[in-house]
Amino acid sequence: MSLPETDTGGKRFSRRRLFGGVGAGAVAVGAGVVVGRSTAPTLDTAAAAAESVVPFRGAHQSGIVTPAQDRMHFATFDVTTDSRDELVAMLKKWTTMAERLTVGAESVPGGVVGGGQYEPPGDTGEAYGLHSSNLTLTIGFGPSLFGTADNDRFGIVDRKPAALEELPRFPADDLDPARSGGDIAIQACADDPQVAVHAIRNLARIAFGTASIRWSQLGFGRTSSTSTTQATARNLFGFKDGTNNIKSEDQPSVDDYVWANGSDGSDWMAGGSYLVARRIRMKIEPWDRAVLGEQERVIGRSKATGAPLGSAAEFDTVDLSSNQIEKNAHIRLASSESLGGIKILRRGYNFTDGSDGFGHLDAGLFFVAFCRDAMTQFVPMQQALARKDLLNEYISHVGSALFACPPGVPDGDDNAYWGSTLFA
Amino acid sequence: MSLPETDTGGKRFSRRRLFGGVGAGAVAVGAGVVVGRSTAPTLDTAAAAAESVVPFRGAHQSGIVTPAQDRMHFATFDVTTDSRDELVAMLKKWTTMAERLTVGAESVPGGVVGGGQYEPPGDTGEAYGLHSSNLTLTIGFGPSLFGTADNDRFGIVDRKPAALEELPRFPADDLDPARSGGDIAIQACADDPQVAVHAIRNLARIAFGTASIRWSQLGFGRTSSTSTTQATARNLFGFKDGTNNIKSEDQPSVDDYVWANGSDGSDWMAGGSYLVARRIRMKIEPWDRAVLGEQERVIGRSKATGAPLGSAAEFDTVDLSSNQIEKNAHIRLASSESLGGIKILRRGYNFTDGSDGFGHLDAGLFFVAFCRDAMTQFVPMQQALARKDLLNEYISHVGSALFACPPGVPDGDDNAYWGSTLFA
Repeated sequence: MSLPETDTGGKRFSRRRLFGGVGAGAVAVGAGVVVGRSTAPTLDTAAAAAESVVPFRGAHQSGIVTPAQDRMHFATFDVTTDSRDELVAMLKKWTTMAERLTVGAESVPGGVVGGGQYEPPGDTGEAYGLHSSNLTLTIGFGPSLFGTADNDRFGIVDRKPAALEELPRFPADDLDPARSGGDIAIQACADDPQVAVHAIRNLARIAFGTASIRWSQLGFGRTSSTSTTQATARNLFGFKDGTNNIKSEDQPSVDDYVWANGSDGSDWMAGGSYLVARRIRMKIEPWDRAVLGEQERVIGRSKATGAPLGSAAEFDTVDLSSNQIEKNAHIRLASSESLGGIKILRRGYNFTDGSDGFGHLDAGLFFVAFCRDAMTQFVPMQQALARKDLLNEYISHVGSALFACPPGVPDGDDNAYWGSTLFA
Repeated sequence: MSLPETDTGGKRFSRRRLFGGVGAGAVAVGAGVVVGRSTAPTLDTAAAAAESVVPFRGAHQSGIVTPAQDRMHFATFDVTTDSRDELVAMLKKWTTMAERLTVGAESVPGGVVGGGQYEPPGDTGEAYGLHSSNLTLTIGFGPSLFGTADNDRFGIVDRKPAALEELPRFPADDLDPARSGGDIAIQACADDPQVAVHAIRNLARIAFGTASIRWSQLGFGRTSSTSTTQATARNLFGFKDGTNNIKSEDQPSVDDYVWANGSDGSDWMAGGSYLVARRIRMKIEPWDRAVLGEQERVIGRSKATGAPLGSAAEFDTVDLSSNQIEKNAHIRLASSESLGGIKILRRGYNFTDGSDGFGHLDAGLFFVAFCRDAMTQFVPMQQALARKDLLNEYISHVGSALFACPPGVPDGDDNAYWGSTLFA
């Protein structure tokens, strides 16, 4: 059997080379040598964007203020070893693989064919020939990873940030343990779902024996634009969602509300961020039977335009003194003004996971938010919403997790890896 | 509250008009007046393709030989009424809505806002502002819809085609009744998942009281190219899938193997096709641990290039006399030559539905095939595969259904609707 020549030497392999695709050709993979643009594609630039690369390395992890890609595969893992060395070894392997994947390379040098006939392929192959598609991979560590004083299996219990307590139970939470928690999370976002799924799968594969997938979630149709270059998308209730979200171009808000600074004593988290994930099931059928006036009353915005009720245009300032916006309308309770100045960076996706067996779509919003400190941002916001939001009649929080996402892997530091500030 | 001017007069409303999007502007919705191109997008034409429209009307339903779009939402329904009139009324409403949706219009005239504050919105809104995205909607009728002599609730038991028996049980079938069967199926394919999900949801919504969703499946990454303009895509085992699939440009094969001609006495199916759906769970983790030689032996092709083992290139003729292709390799058993000339048109999608609770991805292939007669095409093929295919070690069929897809709604016939040849 004849196979094409492939460069299995390591650093310069790209899925594109093997297939002779168009574009920039091989991309150097290594410390700080990634190329590309970090803007998300618009319709007009979709072709170019399929090949574009979001830099993996930097002061911060990508996938946080990166303009939200179109698709997501989110997975959490339970660590199945008690060995700190094995955990650290896996994080190092993951880092190397993640950096390769984000430039569109196969997961390991040689990939599908490099190991020969008598080895399992080093890459599972379903993204072979596909492009980088703006893939970002973002890691986070859950409270459970840090253990307890009685069971400090990885020797990091003393390094657990004060901001990484388990989230409190909120009123009306209906959480499924099988869709909640996890020792480690990886968020894969890309413009092609097959690229995101491929990334999670190959990372899960090399974790075998050290960590296994606890739950995962596929998302489509980003609901929260995170850049002024993106139009506001709609959630499955049909409303524009994320109009007043923090935009990545708003550097003061990003600095104030997104990046942790280690002030809670966890120096290793400086430049990182806290990720809150909530699987929010939408009660699609009752919502669809609600009249337009009720839907707009609940949200506080026009369904067609996204404008705050009483205002003309989507981005008009929400006038909380207006009696057209109900006391417990969603936008009032979620507004920064009502919350004493709190903001969060939302980066959620719509989901549809088939049907629930009762003739209803199992659909909703996979809410993802990044905060400098979830305890002082997400928690008070959700406490207000969980108690009073008119929307609660139509939604149910069925999954929940919190993760500490460490800072980025710095340019030019070959010793750094995902979590190296924690395990240093 | 000020709302933009919308044309709620009925026939000329488009989602695009409201949002002032680029492109051809409003598209006339009505008998035979649809516009657009039916070719699927390549990377270079993705921007243009987002606005392109696959004609809804014609001798055959779209979504069968239409070049496979990137995403799918497939739903089956149980009919909950015993009234033929209510069923026919729903099919008529569905037809009108489906034709609107495929041109990127809202599901009903006026859509989100047309009914006013005191009505539920006529369109659920999540595709508001999105493009037509090559949406196709394809309907099929399951064996159960036709009832029995003892319970002929819709008066169509005598019109049940001989080719529409329930599929036999195949060796190793592990079918979940909750993911099998259904009185009616609708396959929505589009280049944007939100457009496909929106279509199914709005059709399900107006079926309330007449039919309810039995099960649904979201798919991505079309695995079977159905046009010579499309590169062969890869399934989640990392192999090119569908190399020898029937291509829509091969008119003799389409005529011989795809379109029913009513020869079994079911005149109403002439120009239609039989749809077989099989949810095939892939045992991802054992597969990923199999060596490359084993994977290629099972499939009978090179993983990297897709070439038949012993040959040089993907589209080289499969040489069944070659002893490099194992006796029970997948491509040997599935080949037309081994099956006495049988071919089918495959149109499947990859799926990943989270995890299975045991640390494994719930992932695989949602197999969809169209046949002139499933009993003489799919059934003998699957009997051969189910008994002998080496691939069976790594897959499990967990869902199954068969539907008779009637011919298309003809151009210029305002009295025709989905299934009108059956209920005439």
